[in-house]
Amino acid sequence: MFPNHAQPLVTAPAETAILALLLTEGPLSRVELARRTGLSSTAITKSARPLIDDGYLHELPPERTAPGAGRPVNPLAVTVDREFFVGVKISADALFVTVCDLRAGMRATAGRSLGEDRSPEAVCGLLCELVGIVLDADPAFRERTRHLGIAVSGDVDRAAGRVRYSVLPGWRDVPLAEAVAKATGLNVTVENDVKALTVAEHWFGEGIGTEYFALVTIGAGIGSGLVVNGQLITGAYGVAGEMGHLSIDPAGPVCHCGQTGCVEAIASSDAIRDAVRDATGDEDLDFDGVVQLARSGNPAARDAFARAGRAIGTGIAILVNLLGPERVVVTGEGLDTYDLFGVHIKDAYAAHCFKAAAKCPLTLRPLPWEEWARGAAILGIQALFP
Amino acid sequence: MFPNHAQPLVTAPAETAILALLLTEGPLSRVELARRTGLSSTAITKSARPLIDDGYLHELPPERTAPGAGRPVNPLAVTVDREFFVGVKISADALFVTVCDLRAGMRATAGRSLGEDRSPEAVCGLLCELVGIVLDADPAFRERTRHLGIAVSGDVDRAAGRVRYSVLPGWRDVPLAEAVAKATGLNVTVENDVKALTVAEHWFGEGIGTEYFALVTIGAGIGSGLVVNGQLITGAYGVAGEMGHLSIDPAGPVCHCGQTGCVEAIASSDAIRDAVRDATGDEDLDFDGVVQLARSGNPAARDAFARAGRAIGTGIAILVNLLGPERVVVTGEGLDTYDLFGVHIKDAYAAHCFKAAAKCPLTLRPLPWEEWARGAAILGIQALFP
Repeated sequence: MFPNHAQPLVTAPAETAILALLLTEGPLSRVELARRTGLSSTAITKSARPLIDDGYLHELPPERTAPGAGRPVNPLAVTVDREFFVGVKISADALFVTVCDLRAGMRATAGRSLGEDRSPEAVCGLLCELVGIVLDADPAFRERTRHLGIAVSGDVDRAAGRVRYSVLPGWRDVPLAEAVAKATGLNVTVENDVKALTVAEHWFGEGIGTEYFALVTIGAGIGSGLVVNGQLITGAYGVAGEMGHLSIDPAGPVCHCGQTGCVEAIASSDAIRDAVRDATGDEDLDFDGVVQLARSGNPAARDAFARAGRAIGTGIAILVNLLGPERVVVTGEGLDTYDLFGVHIKDAYAAHCFKAAAKCPLTLRPLPWEEWARGAAILGIQALFP
Repeated sequence: MFPNHAQPLVTAPAETAILALLLTEGPLSRVELARRTGLSSTAITKSARPLIDDGYLHELPPERTAPGAGRPVNPLAVTVDREFFVGVKISADALFVTVCDLRAGMRATAGRSLGEDRSPEAVCGLLCELVGIVLDADPAFRERTRHLGIAVSGDVDRAAGRVRYSVLPGWRDVPLAEAVAKATGLNVTVENDVKALTVAEHWFGEGIGTEYFALVTIGAGIGSGLVVNGQLITGAYGVAGEMGHLSIDPAGPVCHCGQTGCVEAIASSDAIRDAVRDATGDEDLDFDGVVQLARSGNPAARDAFARAGRAIGTGIAILVNLLGPERVVVTGEGLDTYDLFGVHIKDAYAAHCFKAAAKCPLTLRPLPWEEWARGAAILGIQALFP
């Protein structure tokens, strides 16, 4: 996070546990909080005090669950507009910005196509302009926003706030967090987009309450984010969750990464397009054309989607056999062509899951780009924690 | 663990942290303990007190690091023979038993081939006999042993203390922990052998101090144990680390699990033997015969080992691309034929690692069966913790 001197809101384990539960699960009574955290009621009351005083929590009106059920209880709740968070998703050709409240509710959004100039300077300029626009939507936003999160596809060094590599032209080792922090005056966190979305889904989406959770994205790239024992896997060398680069077919095509038989080399939208170009000899086909061909029944195009589906299903089964997630969420723009390869994904997944691992359901979750920006805003919410 | 009423020795986070550090890293000064745990010196002294009173820790004589370096410090150390732990490894044809001290030092061992009768009752009887023999080696063992760990290959429900499935004949849903607890009077934990060995190596072996660590076993079976953020991955449905059942070749052989192209279907010792039988037409070849053929230069046998090596290397690369371990330890009886496929393992690993994941070194570690029994004893040491 940049600048580095921003302090978390909570540091003590008890406060941390209380705030996390109320943020992700909504209002809870002190009794319920005590039960869930293993703390005493006294400890709950003591730890909640500073958060109430700071305006982050408030007591709801007393509720009686049943007549004669004893003392009325005042549930504790998060004051959602105590603080706001900006999230930015940088995609290959557009920017999406959102302002979220404390429970990740989207309050304002803005999106803009990238112009011709996609250099770090140009994108950074547009980004700050859009951030200004969403923050101007409500005076409270400017007043009570301290954190901004940026999600970008590619190789991101979160600790250093740098984008080491992205598909955008000229983006090599860009000190993005520092630049945006300087321009906006906010505390900035930059993270790989799939990792940010995984944490967002784990905290506020399909992954709530799971200890083992995975999110898989399909489309132009194939990636995954993995949560184990409640924490995102980041890898000892900064590489983890590279589902797109699992080698699953020694006879498969060469990948842009240099390996042979990667899932992405078979199943990305470019890979599908290239396979159909090769099969049909039509070098002018674009991905939309390939989709049309497949939907009209062209065997070569249908085959390419079938192969892609099998590769994705096999890749997810591998992930599930190694990590044993409770649930896998599948998302990304590849879901737009799910009619063409969904059955192959499911068949290959079922065929390659080992024993009880097959209990893990695949949940399809189309997430518009705004949701990816929301994932980025949640990086800011995380910054409240140690 | 059976019976269920055994209490951990430490429960408070501070005591837990101190005992874990001293167990795994050896004597440390209170200053060093404070630095490593983030606790105050006062908290260290207070938390260490009950462990000293119970005889688990003691103070070493004062040491001065340099003349004039200030007050002498008394490092704290674990009193290794305060408590002992029995570990048992059940292999396909033999039993190995060891008594370990608090820092997992092996003090006595015993091994015995299984007889003709390998039923749960027969193995359990022999197991208890061997446990009696090792405990009789020193009166202190009987006096100060409370925990016994059992490592067995197959599908183990650790929480229920049951072996759901193992390669031993007739072993289906065996309540092993309960039976051994009743016979020995000890608290018994049963765990899958690869998982037990992974935790043992993480605490007391090559994995010390790593947050992300993996152990891969090769030989009759192919398996792996995975540690992420310092904790063993167990999977939401009890399945995780199934490296042997990653599907890596759609054109590969059918596996005993029913899938196609599993690592184990290509690279287990049986798979290698079968491939050479098919290629040579000699149905009487056993694995030793195949090894001899390969060492004498027979092309079919050499090819089978090359394919196996590539499958293992690809499987490890997949594991590394998803989890990003700091180090992978490769062990198992398959190391005996490392001369025949080591180069293929390494080449395939290097070819399929994604970017910085390739920094992760493979460490070969031949572990005799006694070490697997030691891994099981460490299950008992873990039982001291919450």
